[in-house]
Amino acid sequence: MSTWFTRRRPSVELPRLTPRARSLPTVRVDLHEVMPDLLPYLGQAAYLQLEQFETLSRVAAEAGDLHDKGLISAAAGHALSKHQGIVAEIRRRGDDPADAMKPFADEIEGFSALIVGADWRETLLSALVTGGLLDDFFIRLAAGLPGDVGPRLAHLLGSESGQEGVLEVLRGQIAADPLLGSRLAMWGRRLVGDTLLVARSALHLSGNRATDDARIEPIFTELIAAHTRRMDALGLTA
Amino acid sequence: MSTWFTRRRPSVELPRLTPRARSLPTVRVDLHEVMPDLLPYLGQAAYLQLEQFETLSRVAAEAGDLHDKGLISAAAGHALSKHQGIVAEIRRRGDDPADAMKPFADEIEGFSALIVGADWRETLLSALVTGGLLDDFFIRLAAGLPGDVGPRLAHLLGSESGQEGVLEVLRGQIAADPLLGSRLAMWGRRLVGDTLLVARSALHLSGNRATDDARIEPIFTELIAAHTRRMDALGLTA
Repeated sequence: MSTWFTRRRPSVELPRLTPRARSLPTVRVDLHEVMPDLLPYLGQAAYLQLEQFETLSRVAAEAGDLHDKGLISAAAGHALSKHQGIVAEIRRRGDDPADAMKPFADEIEGFSALIVGADWRETLLSALVTGGLLDDFFIRLAAGLPGDVGPRLAHLLGSESGQEGVLEVLRGQIAADPLLGSRLAMWGRRLVGDTLLVARSALHLSGNRATDDARIEPIFTELIAAHTRRMDALGLTA
Repeated sequence: MSTWFTRRRPSVELPRLTPRARSLPTVRVDLHEVMPDLLPYLGQAAYLQLEQFETLSRVAAEAGDLHDKGLISAAAGHALSKHQGIVAEIRRRGDDPADAMKPFADEIEGFSALIVGADWRETLLSALVTGGLLDDFFIRLAAGLPGDVGPRLAHLLGSESGQEGVLEVLRGQIAADPLLGSRLAMWGRRLVGDTLLVARSALHLSGNRATDDARIEPIFTELIAAHTRRMDALGLTA
């Protein structure tokens, strides 16, 4: 049974894409059953991009090296562009972006505080890991949105994120500090659980933990596969 | 004689656009005599935009209201775009952006620390005042750059800055807090002296204070006129 949704300690080994995953039935989850309504989807996605912008711009300010600053700032700018694109969708519907985002303030501000690391390298990994997972998740959900907003959102969220630049900065830091890699690997494992909780909160679930988990596990398995590839790109074990 | 270049305390009244200014001869300053070389110009301008981005994104994070956050973040994004545009100019010349910016690190980081206000509203005014003055200054200098880089830089630096949104946020704050206006008016006066010192540092000056001041006073008079209009737009006396 999945235990993604309880807070995990760093020492707990995360499930990997093992034969167990491969033995999963290939039945796709029916998104319609769990899809959030459009406006909450947009509000939550917009808020998450705004937080991603704030996290990355704070890290850019803390990074001392000007080359690193440039790469991290660029990633912050991409998150801001995505935020602004989602805000434009909310406005296009005639809704107020701040009103649409407000219901998610407590959850997302709390999440944002949880992912602050012991130093800027950890927080940069947080931005990479949580931003990657949540972008993937909201892209996946976009397929279930009504009308033509889904493809537009999927395109927007899948657009350039500056991830390669962030990977470059982190690889440089890991190469320069032999102890950093294992610390970041641990930190990355801890982030996954909290991030999937945020994703889960977007869904209309029945409240029955067993059937809910069975329904969304295929989505989360995909998300974790992509997460594992990001950690691999840093030479770290997810 | 101008005394812009000594640190002023908030209680010192700044010169205004008075009959004294109008009586100035209309002779234009010869920019070629004081122009910085191209690469230092680009490096300093790029660094200043990066700092403006950092200041505005920090303020956006501190502002609690989501509508305000959106407007301030947008201004941060515009500063980042200008930074990236200047960085592209540096790369086009075959130079390294970080190397071009590095000589300005101490001065600009010091300046950036000086303009941190007692709260986010003061720091937002700092971004408005110093960003406005320095954009105007570097646009003015761009006319003296060799080749076709000058018009491109003037266009880039003169492009959308999100200033209207920042003014909207500050007007809202001033309307909601009767004591804030006079505090911001004082803070704005203090910022001008420090900002003009940064501008002055960009110029090739002779070291003779009297002739140098006479040469650059016409430029600074223009900058202060535009500054006064920005403060007017907040209902504040410059």
